[in-house]
Amino acid sequence: MPGTIFSKIIAGGVPCHRVYEDARVLAFLDIAPLSRGHTLLIPKEPAATLDQLSDESAAALGRILPRLCRAVIAVTGVREYNVLQNNGTGAHQEVPHVHFHIIPKPDGGTGLGIGWPAGRLGADAQSLAGQLARHLSAAER
Amino acid sequence: MPGTIFSKIIAGGVPCHRVYEDARVLAFLDIAPLSRGHTLLIPKEPAATLDQLSDESAAALGRILPRLCRAVIAVTGVREYNVLQNNGTGAHQEVPHVHFHIIPKPDGGTGLGIGWPAGRLGADAQSLAGQLARHLSAAER
Repeated sequence: MPGTIFSKIIAGGVPCHRVYEDARVLAFLDIAPLSRGHTLLIPKEPAATLDQLSDESAAALGRILPRLCRAVIAVTGVREYNVLQNNGTGAHQEVPHVHFHIIPKPDGGTGLGIGWPAGRLGADAQSLAGQLARHLSAAER
Repeated sequence: MPGTIFSKIIAGGVPCHRVYEDARVLAFLDIAPLSRGHTLLIPKEPAATLDQLSDESAAALGRILPRLCRAVIAVTGVREYNVLQNNGTGAHQEVPHVHFHIIPKPDGGTGLGIGWPAGRLGADAQSLAGQLARHLSAAER
């Protein structure tokens, strides 16, 4: 996989405003923030999308999220926020290296804008859940 | 904390279309999906927002995400998707129990709508990153 801007940041070839780093993950300020304190959390493992990431890197990302969110709240004073992770250009992913956005939501006009065209579960819900459950169960074996 | 609809689902008092369950987490279909396959992943620990969740529950959520995303891709045939976790009513959180949405993005008109009013890092970026880093560092001690 060719390196992305995030690979270069991890390698130290491109600077960032670093917030946190350990053996598996790195967090730094987004250079085009949706609100003050908008932070990115990335795995050092170079997976393009979350479905391609190892369980171990994904667990490390998950583990640091609460502490990172508490730091963002403490420093910005903003208690509401969105955590967003996009996969695929059609889903608004810009850099093909897994990244979680932590985006403070100080008011309705700032931060992440959300469109929520909710539908209703179809008649195939039971079948759909069964297929997903079987797929997950098979993946564990 | 009074129980939410998710506490009742975890306790088995309210049914769901279950997709995955282990000692720490539960995944099931959203009853008002933004797209077919829209799945919720929740911790069994009853935290309202991610900043209130234990590291262990957060790691367990992170660990199962890649497998869950692979199952959603395999069953829906949709390769692009968003993972979203909202904190606070102003940030579009409806149930005060941590939940990650996995939302397939089959096309521009279906799935999560995203508004992205990007700004630029301010002159205080270095100071801001330093404050966040010190907060995280202090939290580890």
